[in-house]
Amino acid sequence: MNISAEVVKTLREKTGVGFMECKNALLEAKGDLEAAITILRKKGLSAVAKKANRDTKEGLIGCYVHNGKIGVMVEVNCESDFVARNADFQTLVKDVAMQVAASDPRFVRKEDVTEDVLAAEREIYKAQARATGKPENVLDKIVEGRMAKFYAETCLLEQPFVKEPGISVKDHIAAHIQRIGENIQIRRFVRYRLGE
Amino acid sequence: MNISAEVVKTLREKTGVGFMECKNALLEAKGDLEAAITILRKKGLSAVAKKANRDTKEGLIGCYVHNGKIGVMVEVNCESDFVARNADFQTLVKDVAMQVAASDPRFVRKEDVTEDVLAAEREIYKAQARATGKPENVLDKIVEGRMAKFYAETCLLEQPFVKEPGISVKDHIAAHIQRIGENIQIRRFVRYRLGE
Repeated sequence: MNISAEVVKTLREKTGVGFMECKNALLEAKGDLEAAITILRKKGLSAVAKKANRDTKEGLIGCYVHNGKIGVMVEVNCESDFVARNADFQTLVKDVAMQVAASDPRFVRKEDVTEDVLAAEREIYKAQARATGKPENVLDKIVEGRMAKFYAETCLLEQPFVKEPGISVKDHIAAHIQRIGENIQIRRFVRYRLGE
Repeated sequence: MNISAEVVKTLREKTGVGFMECKNALLEAKGDLEAAITILRKKGLSAVAKKANRDTKEGLIGCYVHNGKIGVMVEVNCESDFVARNADFQTLVKDVAMQVAASDPRFVRKEDVTEDVLAAEREIYKAQARATGKPENVLDKIVEGRMAKFYAETCLLEQPFVKEPGISVKDHIAAHIQRIGENIQIRRFVRYRLGE
């Protein structure tokens, strides 16, 4: 079996264990990364589990709680710690958290919407259009129009920015990228609603 | 097919749609709740998706961010909004969030640890003990001792409370339940580490 240098490197980064140990564990695990970690742990290389979460990027974790009932946490990445400490960037992170609280997106970007969800939504819109008596030959067009609205409702980057609804969240971030001169990525978010 | 009154009630609560509509949707979906929601949505009952998140409990969402690099959000439930607004309860929620930031639990309670994880941990401890030359007849005992430590490390309620390590988080909450006179439950938490 051939183990690529890249997989060995990933395992080394995750575990802090030396090259040959990592390569042998991967060979034993037939290339499965998680199984290789388990093998290294069984050998008593106990640092493994701890180092699996090493920092790889700069940026900020931000949160916003509305009235104790809706809470949001976001991670926004940038390239340097210098930018992460910049007041402009900190405001951006807070704004993104407030956006998620107000607009309840389900995904960060269009590309994150799974095929299952897309297929289910398309089917629903088609059935709705058909139920209102629309002819078959225009159904697909109606569905695609409705999907654009679906993205603008459910994907954080596509949503109208709540503090300036004429632009999208994506546009607002693009303006910061231009001004700050570093790439900025919304990495992830989570939103809790009390009792949901 | 028999649809229980309880399932119909759950669908009504999730969708706000009337009894007969819900029952028929469940019959059509052969009792599958998610499929029944999709059927109701296809019929244009568009309030459905929105009401799926209705509040059912009181309490607070709290969060804690350490240095912009580690963020935690928690939901702690109580029985009344009166208690949720109490300063003592608010301090408890903050303390729980700080606990998660400091001690990085993976589960809320012992019962939440999945069988897969338990089996994998037991196997690792057994292999470790065997590797140090321990005789076969004491391995199970060693494994069970190590599991107690596993729970105290990975389950939030079993962890030593960081602000008072002589007691567990569970004990700290029990003291609040006694003092406040309402049941208190840590419902869920999430922890972000920058770049993980």
